[in-house]
Amino acid sequence: MTPSALESNGVSITTKKNVIEVSGKNEKTSVALEGVESHDLVLKTFRLLVADLCQQFNGGHPGGAIGMAAIGVALWKYTMRYAPLQPAWFNRDRFVLSNGHTCLFQYCFLHLTGYRSMTFTQLKSYHSERVDALCPGHPEIEHEGIEVTTGPLGQGVANSVGLAMASKHLAATFNRPGFNVVSNHTWCMVGDACLQEGVALEAISLAGHYRLNNLTIIYDNNQITCDGSVDLTNTENINDKMRACGWNVIDILDGCYDITGLVTAMAAAKHADRPTFINVRTVIGLDSQVAGTADAHGAAFGRDDVAQMKTSYGFDPAQSFVVSPAVRAFFADLPARGDALVQDWQSLVDAYSAEYPELAARFRARMAGEIDLVWTPLVPAKADFPSKPTATRASTGLVFNKIAQAVDTFMVGTADLSPSVYMTWPGKQDFNRPDLMPTKGDPGNYTGRYIHYGIREHAMCAVANGLAAFAPNTIVPVTSSFFMFYLYAAPAVRMGALQHLQVIHVATHDSIGMGEDGPTHQPIELANLYRAMPNLLYIRPADSEETAGAWVAAIQAKKQPVIISTSRHAVPQLAETRRDGVLRGAYVLQEDAEAVLTLIGVGAELSHVVEVAARLRNDHGIATRVVSFPCQRLFEAQPLEYRRQVLQRHRVRAIIAYEPYAPNGWERYANAAASVKRFGHSLPSKAAYKYFGFDATSLLEKTLDYLNRLDADELLAREFVDL
Amino acid sequence: MTPSALESNGVSITTKKNVIEVSGKNEKTSVALEGVESHDLVLKTFRLLVADLCQQFNGGHPGGAIGMAAIGVALWKYTMRYAPLQPAWFNRDRFVLSNGHTCLFQYCFLHLTGYRSMTFTQLKSYHSERVDALCPGHPEIEHEGIEVTTGPLGQGVANSVGLAMASKHLAATFNRPGFNVVSNHTWCMVGDACLQEGVALEAISLAGHYRLNNLTIIYDNNQITCDGSVDLTNTENINDKMRACGWNVIDILDGCYDITGLVTAMAAAKHADRPTFINVRTVIGLDSQVAGTADAHGAAFGRDDVAQMKTSYGFDPAQSFVVSPAVRAFFADLPARGDALVQDWQSLVDAYSAEYPELAARFRARMAGEIDLVWTPLVPAKADFPSKPTATRASTGLVFNKIAQAVDTFMVGTADLSPSVYMTWPGKQDFNRPDLMPTKGDPGNYTGRYIHYGIREHAMCAVANGLAAFAPNTIVPVTSSFFMFYLYAAPAVRMGALQHLQVIHVATHDSIGMGEDGPTHQPIELANLYRAMPNLLYIRPADSEETAGAWVAAIQAKKQPVIISTSRHAVPQLAETRRDGVLRGAYVLQEDAEAVLTLIGVGAELSHVVEVAARLRNDHGIATRVVSFPCQRLFEAQPLEYRRQVLQRHRVRAIIAYEPYAPNGWERYANAAASVKRFGHSLPSKAAYKYFGFDATSLLEKTLDYLNRLDADELLAREFVDL
Repeated sequence: MTPSALESNGVSITTKKNVIEVSGKNEKTSVALEGVESHDLVLKTFRLLVADLCQQFNGGHPGGAIGMAAIGVALWKYTMRYAPLQPAWFNRDRFVLSNGHTCLFQYCFLHLTGYRSMTFTQLKSYHSERVDALCPGHPEIEHEGIEVTTGPLGQGVANSVGLAMASKHLAATFNRPGFNVVSNHTWCMVGDACLQEGVALEAISLAGHYRLNNLTIIYDNNQITCDGSVDLTNTENINDKMRACGWNVIDILDGCYDITGLVTAMAAAKHADRPTFINVRTVIGLDSQVAGTADAHGAAFGRDDVAQMKTSYGFDPAQSFVVSPAVRAFFADLPARGDALVQDWQSLVDAYSAEYPELAARFRARMAGEIDLVWTPLVPAKADFPSKPTATRASTGLVFNKIAQAVDTFMVGTADLSPSVYMTWPGKQDFNRPDLMPTKGDPGNYTGRYIHYGIREHAMCAVANGLAAFAPNTIVPVTSSFFMFYLYAAPAVRMGALQHLQVIHVATHDSIGMGEDGPTHQPIELANLYRAMPNLLYIRPADSEETAGAWVAAIQAKKQPVIISTSRHAVPQLAETRRDGVLRGAYVLQEDAEAVLTLIGVGAELSHVVEVAARLRNDHGIATRVVSFPCQRLFEAQPLEYRRQVLQRHRVRAIIAYEPYAPNGWERYANAAASVKRFGHSLPSKAAYKYFGFDATSLLEKTLDYLNRLDADELLAREFVDL
Repeated sequence: MTPSALESNGVSITTKKNVIEVSGKNEKTSVALEGVESHDLVLKTFRLLVADLCQQFNGGHPGGAIGMAAIGVALWKYTMRYAPLQPAWFNRDRFVLSNGHTCLFQYCFLHLTGYRSMTFTQLKSYHSERVDALCPGHPEIEHEGIEVTTGPLGQGVANSVGLAMASKHLAATFNRPGFNVVSNHTWCMVGDACLQEGVALEAISLAGHYRLNNLTIIYDNNQITCDGSVDLTNTENINDKMRACGWNVIDILDGCYDITGLVTAMAAAKHADRPTFINVRTVIGLDSQVAGTADAHGAAFGRDDVAQMKTSYGFDPAQSFVVSPAVRAFFADLPARGDALVQDWQSLVDAYSAEYPELAARFRARMAGEIDLVWTPLVPAKADFPSKPTATRASTGLVFNKIAQAVDTFMVGTADLSPSVYMTWPGKQDFNRPDLMPTKGDPGNYTGRYIHYGIREHAMCAVANGLAAFAPNTIVPVTSSFFMFYLYAAPAVRMGALQHLQVIHVATHDSIGMGEDGPTHQPIELANLYRAMPNLLYIRPADSEETAGAWVAAIQAKKQPVIISTSRHAVPQLAETRRDGVLRGAYVLQEDAEAVLTLIGVGAELSHVVEVAARLRNDHGIATRVVSFPCQRLFEAQPLEYRRQVLQRHRVRAIIAYEPYAPNGWERYANAAASVKRFGHSLPSKAAYKYFGFDATSLLEKTLDYLNRLDADELLAREFVDL
């Protein structure tokens, strides 16, 4: 390693025999290491365990986990503060395996360090047909000891940045002199791949800017990816790049063995003034016959190879899954050590509660994920909204800004669209590093709850997942951008949905009405993705009242992300809209006696549909119903009886949906739709509606034409028709 | 600027009076500059033109374009090799405006330099309601002088890398000593935002690795974004970061005025041994009252402010859109200069044709976008495929590898999944820099047509767009990865569809059958995005024969991207599959007389549906039809008559679709569907099908249950039912 990088931060390191002492600004760390022989046995046992686990069902990813063995010992035995028997301990260090395919690395250490659920039987379920296995192909947040679900590469890096920000923020908010009730560190393991992914690069830049010195990335630098060697496609100087991004860099050249160096580096990282990048040279699939090659990555080594590993290690090649008592003993102290850490922390929190009873009560409520109910009376009543036409993006500010101001749980951020998304509030404090005095903007403070994510939509949402994953509902992140740019962020939005994280995404400038920015910004097909994405609510409110409903749904959705999708342009406030209707996904807005048509309107275009209905009724004598349909998934959750009552599919002649998006999915509810099946066009909002035939006059014509066509071709009644 | 960065490359620069001479390895460049007063007038005229264009309809983005004025003069007047009257000249320099919202920058220079279509009237259509305007809010590829459609930030950077790679590849393939028939340079303009976006960071790393010295990024460094100043969210050392990524860096400190410095830097960039990053300090909205602030970014300055600009410049505040004869004269030589460049090049190509007739014939065919028809007989016949069950990812290799080998048009790449996607061929040559000898892999060569994109899915697809945009169908890029990771790449796939670019995306590991990797890799909802995305074909073939059909469709689709979506696991070869059926999107696979049900099967699960039909027929006496449905959009393009004939919606009792994806959209074709509305689960392929009720036995049960439910509840017949 390179101590010089540390000494410049006033950190001194001494190693005497097996004791490493690091002293720096924050604290003094002393670690006593076990002997070399003991380490040797543990490392060999671990590597064989991984090889056996892949061999049993002839599949999986052995190489990375094996190469990282010494890193794991340095982390779980000597560095991380955690409690195997109390895995949800609030102040635990967070470990994120961004290279999630090496999951056996984590599963084996969870088992060895004594996590209750990870029994030896469970560990052996890897790649089995067991449907309740705790060892899926990538780590999943639902299981003990797993902080976030990783898999798609790079996400974990950004999640880690969010976890470290959460910790910084909670510490700045709740810690008091002598009472560091939040003081954990985040450790993120990455491979060569994560460092090539854009989402990670965005997050790395952000973390350096924020000076997150409670974050350490450990780089399993084996220079091997599926295609061969990394230098086929990447020859950058990663250390220089990380330094340029504001990170400390420490090199470990002998990473398969040098536990002393690794522990020293990790201890030093905890004293740094910025995030630390530990660049660890390892050998993928060490000691197998495919060591150092791509063949070690994603396939079992084969029976013979595993046998030769065992023989060369002095193990019996006929035996599998051997964990000797000496190895068990090596890890045996960890559950008790963990319990002691928790006990110490609980005593600290008790003393803190005595000294700061009010603050401590808030802290406990936040830890429990209780969102302060002060928000409910802050939601404006329908009568409180302006009566003039109002953009629903503005409505979202009218509904939420006061709540954001009042309820500390919300950390609100934007991918550089503050002037457009209406998410700021008077007196908001930016989350930023305390030494920062930006050229234009507020001085930084980690207590701040407004986050300038930069033009990094993907990292914004992946970082938000990390904020949310710190503890359930302790922080509820709110992100914001134009709806179209949630396509950049989609992989992270998906991971939030998969992990049941409450994250609220404020997506403005939806529909073709966003205008002049043109087809690159008009989200014709994006709603189709989010309406199909499991466990996510995509809500398009039609006016201020429905926007209130959307926010109520979002704040109450404690186990799922929500996208609130709003208009750039002003839309009328409609007399019949109802927030409770939004909570049911769709509801009857207008009901004529003996109606022959049900018209479905959505979001910014609901008012156009109301106008079509009025003209059908008044000018053509056609009795018509109008249904407002802000959220398909909420509607699907309603009882069949309610759904039938809303749609009246069996009574009316036809149901017609109107939305300037791709129609896919409306066929479930309607017999015909006016939709947009091509990309958009750069025009002022009103002109765009006209160009695409989405002004009320054009929609009326399409509707009448459809009715005529129904008369002319009886087969059409059983088909879905594009208007 | 910092000449030292250049001298290390053996480049010498001298400036005598108004003449800049740069000599380096490749060539000697000499540029004679106009006088300072002339530049001053042009810059002022340009800035006022931009201000007026935003003022007329009180909207748009003036600030960036104004700050970049001097950069534009350096580019269009002194540096770029292009022909305004022959905008499609093959060997022109490519200019990409990655910060596309500053489109007036490009539109004004297109007008001033004499592009025919960009008349003064057209220029003034910016933000108007004119539906055939050439001045949309972001540049669009359809218009003269625009190389790619930009808008979503960061895409343009990656497109530029693709354009530069295309040029390197074509040069390496076709140039001969003394005949540099391909020798153009790519210039990419970026703002602060582009350099924060992950897709750009991925592409920058790749370009540095490839040593693309025919690529220059010009950074409009005004340190202002929508939220205020860049240092709110980004304090990295960008120059060091770029150097770490393998780029030359040149600083221009006085970028609003220093045309000499800019021209020198650009000339030097053409002599560099690697890509160059010109970091130009500018002032956003220079000389307006909001200069240097975020207010200058996205709104007109206001009447008074524009007037004060004019007054301070010595212009008449009462007049708008003033372009004096002197300014016209400044740019007047450019059309003729351009024509002379084209003439010289045509003479060169003529001489080349005489010297290398065969090569020149190939070159001309490639320039014309003719894909060598040698591919058609290479597509295997149905009988040529193995009869054993075969993964459709393997089928895709069986169909395409020989074509890739034989037809130079295809540049095939992967985001580091070569062993999984079956896209290599014997003797394939990697595209890589010639001095590279990777640790594992082939030595580099720019003639290579196999691209290791690294673990950079988003950049892969955005770079592929650049390869395709070099000239229509001159290069047809093929990308490959797991289907799920095409969510990372979705913004770029979208931009390819929007630009009508032929790019073929090979997406393997679709469906839940991809198995152990689990829910992070199982693409439950992703097909919904791509089926809704305009101008894109998403094709899921069911076996080798249908895979052949998918490839035929993809190669013939000269104006749209195609995703060929294939299975990881082996699927049976079905007797009745037909490639011509794939070309129609859906077709009748099995037809019983007097059938009462139509079953829709797709891709990897078609064989399950065939089994369900067999059991319905044989065990339950229910006459059944089976439709194979690989591509919804191709089917939608068929005549109504064909569609009715395939589905028989009016004759059968019900149509049932079976696909382990979110159902949204199948409602158009079916009355009921077996689908998956939750995230996946990590299990071996077969176990996953069973777990989700997608084995034939479960599907049969669901089908029979549905028929019973139809009997019990007559309303169900008019509703879509989830099985």
